Amino acid sequence: MEPVLFYGVPHGCSFGSIVALEWLGQPYRLARIDMLAKSKSDIYGRVNSMHQTPTMLLENGKSLSESFAILQNIAGRDLERKLGFAQGTENHDRLNQMLAYLHTSFHSAFAPAWTAYKLKEGDPAIQMLRDLAREKAASGYAYLQSHLQGRDWLVGDHRTIADAYMIGIARWGEDLGLFDLKSEYPGLHNYLQKLEADKGVIFAHAIEDGSDAATSGMFLGHVTLDEVGQRLAA
Amino acid sequence: MEPVLFYGVPHGCSFGSIVALEWLGQPYRLARIDMLAKSKSDIYGRVNSMHQTPTMLLENGKSLSESFAILQNIAGRDLERKLGFAQGTENHDRLNQMLAYLHTSFHSAFAPAWTAYKLKEGDPAIQMLRDLAREKAASGYAYLQSHLQGRDWLVGDHRTIADAYMIGIARWGEDLGLFDLKSEYPGLHNYLQKLEADKGVIFAHAIEDGSDAATSGMFLGHVTLDEVGQRLAA
Ligand SMILES: N[C@@H](CCC(=O)N[C@@H](CS)C(=O)NCC(=O)O)C(=O)O
Ligand SMILES: N[C@@H](CCC(=O)N[C@@H](CS)C(=O)NCC(=O)O)C(=O)O
Repeated sequence: MEPVLFYGVPHGCSFGSIVALEWLGQPYRLARIDMLAKSKSDIYGRVNSMHQTPTMLLENGKSLSESFAILQNIAGRDLERKLGFAQGTENHDRLNQMLAYLHTSFHSAFAPAWTAYKLKEGDPAIQMLRDLAREKAASGYAYLQSHLQGRDWLVGDHRTIADAYMIGIARWGEDLGLFDLKSEYPGLHNYLQKLEADKGVIFAHAIEDGSDAATSGMFLGHVTLDEVGQRLAA
Repeated sequence: MEPVLFYGVPHGCSFGSIVALEWLGQPYRLARIDMLAKSKSDIYGRVNSMHQTPTMLLENGKSLSESFAILQNIAGRDLERKLGFAQGTENHDRLNQMLAYLHTSFHSAFAPAWTAYKLKEGDPAIQMLRDLAREKAASGYAYLQSHLQGRDWLVGDHRTIADAYMIGIARWGEDLGLFDLKSEYPGLHNYLQKLEADKGVIFAHAIEDGSDAATSGMFLGHVTLDEVGQRLAA
């Protein structure tokens, strides 16, 4: 069977992996994980012992976790698609650098605000956590905007898995009500708008929202966790 | 000129990159960055605009940042050395997965305790931050110990850049006085002891401590930041 990507809602960092699969143009399926659900699924625990998303169930029944590894796996399935680069090239290093930055400093900048999001209204820690996130994310936005000056894409001269991942994370500043990117980071905002107009990105939003989604790639439908259970390697 | 690795003291996550360079066996130099220094060096700001370590200055005068990218660059310089794996292989995915886990969840688990370390004695936040770090790092140690059951190395059947990076991070639990790994995670402790006996690891400790260091690789000496300034690409 084709690979299955487990993506998390609401607004998971798995978003970029859905976009990358659309861009790859090879058959794949999706499985939906509610990240706020109190009762954690046992089957998903066998797929990812940390109950995090994304995870990709591979053709051999084994699962691959960590968004960075999943994105590089997707890119590596067809280097001609140019979602990544061949090992040993300068752009391969630059892609690793950008992905690492986005997965570490930039991703974690928002963590305090996600913690605040799960606290009860009125908790005095909320404002402190949101301020901390705003401060850290602001350096991230500023760095990324200056990096993008004079470039169309994060790495090289075409869209890559770095752009796919970026669009799933950069939105958090507005999702969490911390920033107005259009007025605060207009250059970055323009780049993000260009990505928002991409068919793969529009599809990934529709998937997350549970609305009608027109694949521009080779999405073959959702699978349930029960169906997944039967496919897992022992 | 050969590549120059900027490593941070005290106890930076750049430790693993020094070990990896020793294991590679190709000529390299080091430059030392005091991470607690209040006045940030302008020259280092040109090497890494975030003033973080590690960074590697490449032969072409450009700098590569992000530990993940640096480690994969080192491994890719000679795949025969088996510090990494060829793109497209299952072990390449597994190495990316382990590196990503170590650079994201595991690295960031200790962040609250590093924040506490920089606070003034008596600050009421210290205990809360240390407790938080202990809780997060404990899941990390437990996960890594169970992953290592029945294995000699983190990925595949020989040492890789994942082991090199691991030894530089896993020590933080004891450095920060949060854990006694020998009694709490004996399996993990044994694996770490094996690494501590490695010549490259012994060398990296000596470098950090500023004591006499016998290279088992091809370390050609330190360079100063002024010397670096002359080498930077415009
Ligand atoms: N290092 C992991 C982090 C994944 C991660 O943070 N996933 C979040 C969603 S963005 C998640 O699953 N959160 C739910 C939870 O941790 O319980 C990666 O890059 O894939
Ligand atoms: N995402 C970066 C993080 C590097 C990092 O956290 N470096 C720390 C040392 S372990 C540092 O430079 N801290 C000093 C500072 O941030 O000012 C990487 O993986 O290389």
